[in-house]
Amino acid sequence: MNIPQTSFPRVVIIGGGFAGLAAAKGLENEELQVVLLDKHNYHTFQPLLYQVATGGLEPDSIAFPLRKRFNDIENFYFRLAEVTNINAERKEVSTSIGSLSYDYLIIATGSTTNFFGNTNIEKYTMEMKSIPQSLNIRSLILENFEEALLTSDLEERKKLMNFVIVGGGPTGVELAGALAEMKKEILPKDYPDLDIRLMKINLIQSSESILKGMSEKASEKAEDFLIKLGVDVWKNLRVLDYDGETVSTNGEDHFKSSTVIWAAGVKGESINGLEAECIVERAARYKVDGYNRVSPHKNIFAIGDVACMNSEKYPYGHPMMAQPAIQQGRLLAKNILAELKGKNMKPFIYNDKGSMATIGRNKAVVDLPKWKFQGVFAWFVWMFVHLFSLIGFRNKAVVFLNWVYNYIRFDRETRLIIRPYKNKNEYSFKNEI
Amino acid sequence: MNIPQTSFPRVVIIGGGFAGLAAAKGLENEELQVVLLDKHNYHTFQPLLYQVATGGLEPDSIAFPLRKRFNDIENFYFRLAEVTNINAERKEVSTSIGSLSYDYLIIATGSTTNFFGNTNIEKYTMEMKSIPQSLNIRSLILENFEEALLTSDLEERKKLMNFVIVGGGPTGVELAGALAEMKKEILPKDYPDLDIRLMKINLIQSSESILKGMSEKASEKAEDFLIKLGVDVWKNLRVLDYDGETVSTNGEDHFKSSTVIWAAGVKGESINGLEAECIVERAARYKVDGYNRVSPHKNIFAIGDVACMNSEKYPYGHPMMAQPAIQQGRLLAKNILAELKGKNMKPFIYNDKGSMATIGRNKAVVDLPKWKFQGVFAWFVWMFVHLFSLIGFRNKAVVFLNWVYNYIRFDRETRLIIRPYKNKNEYSFKNEI
Repeated sequence: MNIPQTSFPRVVIIGGGFAGLAAAKGLENEELQVVLLDKHNYHTFQPLLYQVATGGLEPDSIAFPLRKRFNDIENFYFRLAEVTNINAERKEVSTSIGSLSYDYLIIATGSTTNFFGNTNIEKYTMEMKSIPQSLNIRSLILENFEEALLTSDLEERKKLMNFVIVGGGPTGVELAGALAEMKKEILPKDYPDLDIRLMKINLIQSSESILKGMSEKASEKAEDFLIKLGVDVWKNLRVLDYDGETVSTNGEDHFKSSTVIWAAGVKGESINGLEAECIVERAARYKVDGYNRVSPHKNIFAIGDVACMNSEKYPYGHPMMAQPAIQQGRLLAKNILAELKGKNMKPFIYNDKGSMATIGRNKAVVDLPKWKFQGVFAWFVWMFVHLFSLIGFRNKAVVFLNWVYNYIRFDRETRLIIRPYKNKNEYSFKNEI
Repeated sequence: MNIPQTSFPRVVIIGGGFAGLAAAKGLENEELQVVLLDKHNYHTFQPLLYQVATGGLEPDSIAFPLRKRFNDIENFYFRLAEVTNINAERKEVSTSIGSLSYDYLIIATGSTTNFFGNTNIEKYTMEMKSIPQSLNIRSLILENFEEALLTSDLEERKKLMNFVIVGGGPTGVELAGALAEMKKEILPKDYPDLDIRLMKINLIQSSESILKGMSEKASEKAEDFLIKLGVDVWKNLRVLDYDGETVSTNGEDHFKSSTVIWAAGVKGESINGLEAECIVERAARYKVDGYNRVSPHKNIFAIGDVACMNSEKYPYGHPMMAQPAIQQGRLLAKNILAELKGKNMKPFIYNDKGSMATIGRNKAVVDLPKWKFQGVFAWFVWMFVHLFSLIGFRNKAVVFLNWVYNYIRFDRETRLIIRPYKNKNEYSFKNEI
């Protein structure tokens, strides 16, 4: 990999998401060599992927070049590489561009879509964890509308205009809301010769409420917002299968749809090589101790979505969101530096700053630890927090400009099929990184 | 295609580039049915493709959704379709989504890269006529740098960092300048462990001067700018072949390079079906009369790059640029309306507003009919004209914001490999629309 061996200990970080970046930042300009590995050359701001998928933002404005982030840092190396194996005994990772030894290893690989073993669903539904996947969804929505124009078969047209989103978490809710706004403001103008009433947006949730991680009030209000926007919300309904045409469920309702988006589950993006006992089954996350250490390995840590730290308050690990990832990354950097200086590490305590979701124009729900509110003000808070969290001034400015424009003009102008999806949806294309 | 037959005559326009859009605009809200066909759902502002390729702009900001452009126009239809054949006798076009009859046909398909029959060059070089192709170039540049980091073979590294641009027209010159600025400002920071002196940018021109269509002064000054930026300009050198490794020429100089961009020629994007005599050989443009009519067909017109109108001043047709395309589109719309009202058509006279090219920061050349100037002021004029010509307020604003940011920060922040190219460069991927 052409990375020099120095007298400094080498910290290898796998993944440039929220967790990995926070750890790397904490280790800047110390007596350490830091190597960051990622399969993309950019950081993805995942909370706004749904706006890329629905034509509200350009992909470049929610991505930030990883090299730029660190290009003035001494002893820092970035390599564009996919890690394929961890060898804890040899203290070495294998990657697509060769192997690399480490003194400390930080696994910050994040999460990937969980299809719970259903290969049909994996094959036919769309996922939205990366920028290329979001562009696939954008293309498919628009391509289906173009096709709906052409068919004279009413059933076929209905199927092309029927959208099913599986999973009532923040991703599913935000995407359903954005689609509903496209239905209201954009698509009737763009497709005046289509009967827009045929367009249906279904949000399917297996349990009895949406936004399960949030307060009851937030969940109710979000559902209310969605229904007002014209989304059909299905609760206590479990999707069993999808053959590319029909979504079958455990209830009476089945859905003929050409576009099914799977937002019903995530799992850790774990890597081959660490012993089986390190992995929490099903969730595929690494079991870590209070210092994010993947025991029994003293020098291997996992942070963010891929880490599962059990505590009294969080018996199944912390929520798979940006905040725990950032906080764990920051603390781990401090802990590694402390250990190198012979000091004690501090255990991780999650500072829950709250959570929020946006449903549409002037419609959001916010749960702060001491205050829960919904509506216009929540929507402004949501926007401010997300704008503030984006990396880079240019990104902030471009996103802000797009939001102001979209707000004033009731528009989403990046509805471009730049990366056509249809007739290419072989598995290989779908999973392109 | 599900387009209603009305009592209005139907005008079918193939292509939503500068020419097609100008014609469509001129036919708005008249007693006509207008059908616009394009293989993309967006208009591409081709003059700025090189900035997408070099990470200065996001693709979405130089594209505009075609449906949005016309979504408040009566009797206007857009279809996402590729036209495969023209049947003049039956007054019908065949497309990827079925056939369509016309009363008037306007061919505005633009131009495509001309490899002059060299299949090796077609296979191994990069072209830059569309957004996906520009993104391929952006990815390849960055991927080659990532790879250059990894190899310990100096010759291999030199090859990966050696860029060859064939063709000294505006495209080649602007791209060479932008690459030179990346070399100066961006890449040394992003790749501090690479010896940036190994990076070479070669611009190869077969004739004795670059920017042949412009004034001698502009050509000389542009060359001067390029050389100051560190570009190696090769004149009177003809590229004969490229096998994916070595560019061979008719001179003594050969170039080992992993990235060869072919900007040495364009030809009309003609369509099967019109008789051979309509086509100017080699250039593949339709021979048209003074009214842009493809004789002997009274109701078939060609405008823009794909049209070749011989005149005393332009014996080989008008230059393949935006201005003739826009002017021909506008006049043709008026002429069709005139004919429908029994009035006479007006012959086309090209109003040459001049031409310009930018080489880099504060460096451009502008030839106006009565004034030729170079340098900082030319650069501001270039920017103003391009900003003003972009379609859509949002695009103008985003591009402006990026330019201001890039100017102040000496940066180009969209250096993201969102669409990986390497190891995928089979012919099929390369030519994806």
